Amino acid sequence: MASRIGTRTIRLDRPPRVIAHAGLAGKKESEGPLQSVFDRTFADTTFGEKGWEKAEQTLLRMTLGCALQKAKLPPSALDLICAGDLENQCTASSFAFEDSGAPFCGLYGACSTMALALAVAALAVETGTCRLAAAATGSHFCTAERQFRKPLEYGGQRTPTAQWTVTGAGAAILAANGDETDPKITAVQFGTITDLGITDGANMGAAMAPAAARTIADFLRDTNTKPGDYDLILTGDLGFIGSELLLELLRREDIDLTAVHNDCGKMIFDRERQDVHAGGSGCGCSASVLCSHIFDEIRRGRYRKVLFVATGALLSATSALQGETIPGIAHAVLLERGETEERA
Amino acid sequence: MASRIGTRTIRLDRPPRVIAHAGLAGKKESEGPLQSVFDRTFADTTFGEKGWEKAEQTLLRMTLGCALQKAKLPPSALDLICAGDLENQCTASSFAFEDSGAPFCGLYGACSTMALALAVAALAVETGTCRLAAAATGSHFCTAERQFRKPLEYGGQRTPTAQWTVTGAGAAILAANGDETDPKITAVQFGTITDLGITDGANMGAAMAPAAARTIADFLRDTNTKPGDYDLILTGDLGFIGSELLLELLRREDIDLTAVHNDCGKMIFDRERQDVHAGGSGCGCSASVLCSHIFDEIRRGRYRKVLFVATGALLSATSALQGETIPGIAHAVLLERGETEERA
Repeated sequence: MASRIGTRTIRLDRPPRVIAHAGLAGKKESEGPLQSVFDRTFADTTFGEKGWEKAEQTLLRMTLGCALQKAKLPPSALDLICAGDLENQCTASSFAFEDSGAPFCGLYGACSTMALALAVAALAVETGTCRLAAAATGSHFCTAERQFRKPLEYGGQRTPTAQWTVTGAGAAILAANGDETDPKITAVQFGTITDLGITDGANMGAAMAPAAARTIADFLRDTNTKPGDYDLILTGDLGFIGSELLLELLRREDIDLTAVHNDCGKMIFDRERQDVHAGGSGCGCSASVLCSHIFDEIRRGRYRKVLFVATGALLSATSALQGETIPGIAHAVLLERGETEERA
Repeated sequence: MASRIGTRTIRLDRPPRVIAHAGLAGKKESEGPLQSVFDRTFADTTFGEKGWEKAEQTLLRMTLGCALQKAKLPPSALDLICAGDLENQCTASSFAFEDSGAPFCGLYGACSTMALALAVAALAVETGTCRLAAAATGSHFCTAERQFRKPLEYGGQRTPTAQWTVTGAGAAILAANGDETDPKITAVQFGTITDLGITDGANMGAAMAPAAARTIADFLRDTNTKPGDYDLILTGDLGFIGSELLLELLRREDIDLTAVHNDCGKMIFDRERQDVHAGGSGCGCSASVLCSHIFDEIRRGRYRKVLFVATGALLSATSALQGETIPGIAHAVLLERGETEERA
């Protein structure tokens, strides 16, 4: 049974297994430091479609398809698809999975969606209500630019704090049982919205860092653990500036994350060579990195215990134009190597 | 424990109770047939705010506040808030609940969000991972018009099939235990996206009816029940045209819903007198009707068993302009009068 520990953390006593996963990415991502880890990369980021929104749908559908193929399952075998994305009204997910024939739980957590989807899917499987559940999300640079910022054709300059939306997607298939190398989800925490008053939509790392700090501090306190107990505490896409802020915010609470922290927004691009300013962002950033590189490293035994904390900036183009602040959220998922001793 | 019955339905063997609920509505809704059932109505639909988006946030915050007040609880007592809305990137929910101090699960189901939020909150409470969880959603006519259709100032004509977005919101507080009159949630079903190719954004009832038919047929088959076993099968906001289509689609499967069906989009406005064409719509339509009138009638014993099937049209202004079809979804929640015998 799932049970509550501390104030906010949910321990999964029958931890679901990630039986298959896939991370797909676009051209720029394929030229970065993680080029060799993705399941597939694409030089043509239209994916053969006429428009960017359709391209994003196709990428998301292919990514879940790739994970399902590894698990040798059709989409209709899924008891639940948990998914969401950055497009207005989450249309990338709705259109990507409209022909799946599987029940669908639409989620919105901005760039935190991969952790949110894993949390909901893990709860559904742990309770025995779903035998197989999928978590999936993605993003596309070109849809995000024109929806949140400027049309690509405008060729606008980017500020030094701006992050680069990843063209990529990740999908994971969860089941109650699996092989011994299949990563386990042993705890989850739904984040609490945190808003310290940042209004600069070109500095989302700063807007999300306080939410990440809150979730990580809560998680460590609830589970009575310290950073050294983890091989990796991986934030979603704080990027270079948000990551520094996170370390500083936690230092004030006497938590030193330096030795175990990394961030998907820092890992996916080469800051010097790829002109991405503060790093990567977008739902697809943490999703594609987690569902390829991180899960693979857990399988190989390089990581035995990873706290995955995806972060989201809950703004819209409208709220930004209206001068509103940017609420941040960070959901946490604890991943452990499969053969780790089961909790009673 | 929750358990799966049939192919898609999840039975909650320890059914959570709806310990408090509130439905709030605007001026036009207060002039309709349900005027006396809402907890509060407002002649000024700005709710004292400068813009429509802030007005929608305020309405949603007040609605959850009203339900919490009835339960004599502060927002921070909640272990989870499940919420979403129609605004781009669901900003009404994020801003409404950013100061709640409660963990937040952002959802997107368009006008089906109330059933989706109840389903996720019910699962969280049933499994014991959350002691108290809230489900909330709302909509505002003026934000929806300018986001999905035309600026209000344009004064555009509406087609006969168009529905009128409700200015209203609903919130429900779920707990493991409650008074004997507190309605119980005894089963849920996550809907499957269904798209029969409707492209007319001014005829959303037609786009959503096939999803509602699919969910209702699946639910009846999974639970081995017939329409006569329910006091009410209540769809979200199919309106007048969508409701007729639903009855017709189910008739083809030899299911006659005529005697027990009603629709929140039909109930909330007076078709003749209020010039709403095909009826009400919006997340707030089914949310405000369910969380006032329907829950009250279950408490009074007028209804003992209600199948609530909220429906959503998963389009965006962008997908509509790109000529895409409109995927529909319908999530189901089975509500029973509190003192009904517990299942073993």
